[in-house]
Amino acid sequence: MPPVGAGTVTTPAGVRAAGVHCGIKADRPDLALVVTDAPAAAAALFTTNRVAAAPVQVCRAQVARGQAQAVVINSGNANACTGLQGLRDAWEMVDLTAAALGLARDLVLVASTGVIGVPLPMARLREGIPAAARALGPHGDRAAEAIRTTDAFPKTGAVQVEIGGRPVAVGGMAKGAGMIHPRLATTLAVLTTDAAVAPAVLRQALREAVDASFNRISVDGDTSTNDTVIALATGAAGHPPVRTVAEPGFAVLRDALTALARHLALLVVRDGEGATKVVEVAVTGARSAAEAQRAAEAVMTSPLVKTAFYGTEPNWGRILAALGRSGAEVDPDRVTVTLGGVEVVRGGVGVADRLPAAAAAMREPAFTVAIDLGLGTGAWHGWTCDLTEGYVRLNSGYLT
Amino acid sequence: MPPVGAGTVTTPAGVRAAGVHCGIKADRPDLALVVTDAPAAAAALFTTNRVAAAPVQVCRAQVARGQAQAVVINSGNANACTGLQGLRDAWEMVDLTAAALGLARDLVLVASTGVIGVPLPMARLREGIPAAARALGPHGDRAAEAIRTTDAFPKTGAVQVEIGGRPVAVGGMAKGAGMIHPRLATTLAVLTTDAAVAPAVLRQALREAVDASFNRISVDGDTSTNDTVIALATGAAGHPPVRTVAEPGFAVLRDALTALARHLALLVVRDGEGATKVVEVAVTGARSAAEAQRAAEAVMTSPLVKTAFYGTEPNWGRILAALGRSGAEVDPDRVTVTLGGVEVVRGGVGVADRLPAAAAAMREPAFTVAIDLGLGTGAWHGWTCDLTEGYVRLNSGYLT
Repeated sequence: MPPVGAGTVTTPAGVRAAGVHCGIKADRPDLALVVTDAPAAAAALFTTNRVAAAPVQVCRAQVARGQAQAVVINSGNANACTGLQGLRDAWEMVDLTAAALGLARDLVLVASTGVIGVPLPMARLREGIPAAARALGPHGDRAAEAIRTTDAFPKTGAVQVEIGGRPVAVGGMAKGAGMIHPRLATTLAVLTTDAAVAPAVLRQALREAVDASFNRISVDGDTSTNDTVIALATGAAGHPPVRTVAEPGFAVLRDALTALARHLALLVVRDGEGATKVVEVAVTGARSAAEAQRAAEAVMTSPLVKTAFYGTEPNWGRILAALGRSGAEVDPDRVTVTLGGVEVVRGGVGVADRLPAAAAAMREPAFTVAIDLGLGTGAWHGWTCDLTEGYVRLNSGYLT
Repeated sequence: MPPVGAGTVTTPAGVRAAGVHCGIKADRPDLALVVTDAPAAAAALFTTNRVAAAPVQVCRAQVARGQAQAVVINSGNANACTGLQGLRDAWEMVDLTAAALGLARDLVLVASTGVIGVPLPMARLREGIPAAARALGPHGDRAAEAIRTTDAFPKTGAVQVEIGGRPVAVGGMAKGAGMIHPRLATTLAVLTTDAAVAPAVLRQALREAVDASFNRISVDGDTSTNDTVIALATGAAGHPPVRTVAEPGFAVLRDALTALARHLALLVVRDGEGATKVVEVAVTGARSAAEAQRAAEAVMTSPLVKTAFYGTEPNWGRILAALGRSGAEVDPDRVTVTLGGVEVVRGGVGVADRLPAAAAAMREPAFTVAIDLGLGTGAWHGWTCDLTEGYVRLNSGYLT
């Protein structure tokens, strides 16, 4: 996969963006626009939570057409659990954006993130959306800034590939940093490209990219009401359109989207609420890929394992306990566990004298826990972070 | 159900106990014995974790006979993930106890709790078990002291009932305080009674008592490798034995065991690692009891919900988000949520002006979150605690 470098949603040709402060938050940017010069192919994936926020319901309907020209996103308020008024407000955000940009309503996607259960301050958005439209430019960085919630830093990136002999850019932004789990764990991301691609092909590429990235990260095991990943493809790169997944351009685009989405997903984990470490959990030797995922997720979400990561304690007993309750078939006598490259468990039993070396490896800001269940060929890996006092502090004082 | 008062495992007639320091822990009691004057009816329930500690494997085999006269328990070391040596050590604990008490090996049950993956220091147990046997007496309190791990306080209780016109006592002890989840969430408990009861009937009473108590609590969502709940019935109360579940004595005994087990389970939650609050989560209106349990467990284990409990923040959006990802059928428009008696959500939307009252109710050391899904008659309730900085501190520095 291509390396991901500097860049944003406005790196691809034909995309402008803005990020402004409209007053939902006290003093930080809280409103983002991403706009393409002409109608773009559009695809999106959404939260699997049964409690889906109003903008998710609206955006799901809007994106079904496979075409969009603008995405409006506010932070500071999720417009979730806000009833009929919430739906009305999400539609009004669409209409305000369409009016400010002179577009058809059908071409506007919408997303929100922030506190749940509080009505949107629509007066602010009625002023803010036209102001954001006036501020449009090569400002992907400002848009990324405006979708932050508890994020410590904005998350952007871009990657360059070539399709049909033409340079193609893929850019993007995401926000963390809580309610992150591998069932569309992202809360919000927008990926843009100047590739020319049919909406159904873009959707397939997006699905594969998300399965290899946002669907592999966990911060806290919670799943947001607002998760939305949107992809827009302007076609401005000028190559012949990719119309089927059998064409070579599909794999190139998919791999570029995957590289970028993984870059963004790992930034989300690194910025996990209170986190000090990124830990890859890689399970092999399961009876199936699904069992490998179940085993890995139990380890990735165990508070006892995650506090041990924080304390750089090679407490592999907690890892085995998590595997044993995961629901995956586990035969303790066959389990091997490697912490940061140091094998600490073989055949379900501790390897003598390896704990100091493992503890040293766990002091790195990123390391891998490799688990071989020794039962089959099923494999899966994901990324999690540690559980810290900072997480508790941040989340016990969110509203107050 | 009868009220639970002061008392211990030695409150029932025909039971002696001891708790001593044998040197597994640096300076606290770490070895407990519970012994009946004659062979007692015995039943036990064990962890559902696939990674079961050696003493669990041994105890499961021993208790299958339905008779026992002694239980030996050490803290400070779980003898889990210790391979063949661990099994040999668990059997040696049985043999040491049988020898010290002059009993047949078949009559000894065994349990361990503490750190996983470290071999038992058998030299300490070879001296400690005979010493504990010499110390036997009405010392249920000392036994409860000796099974503590991270517990802040010992957990005991007893209850008096009447069967066949004779007074019957049920006493018990448990330990907390981590790896607690409603799949036999307890780590260790011993319940004793002087009731006369057939082993199969005792087993059924124990199962129902545990389903209403230890199988309803969560501290951290993790499930121990060592969970063991043992019931011993001496028959010393002298009433005609309860031989079937159809006899009136069964319900009396079951209800007494249930009351005691619930008392102990709630002490475990109150002493949950770092916990400052006990929160009952009661779900009604689910499509089935199983869905109600799934919904309640999602709320009980959500770190975002539990940190909000800690911060006394009525952040009901996190509760709705947890319900929505639980796997239970949830229609947001039908959900009602009451926090400490204050209705904060009706029809999936916040009730105006109730947050200050709800926050005040959440400042109590115990309160109830009542959730009505409005879809059916399925109900389930359980108990959880808050997630605090103390939990992280405790568990990030457990080994070191």
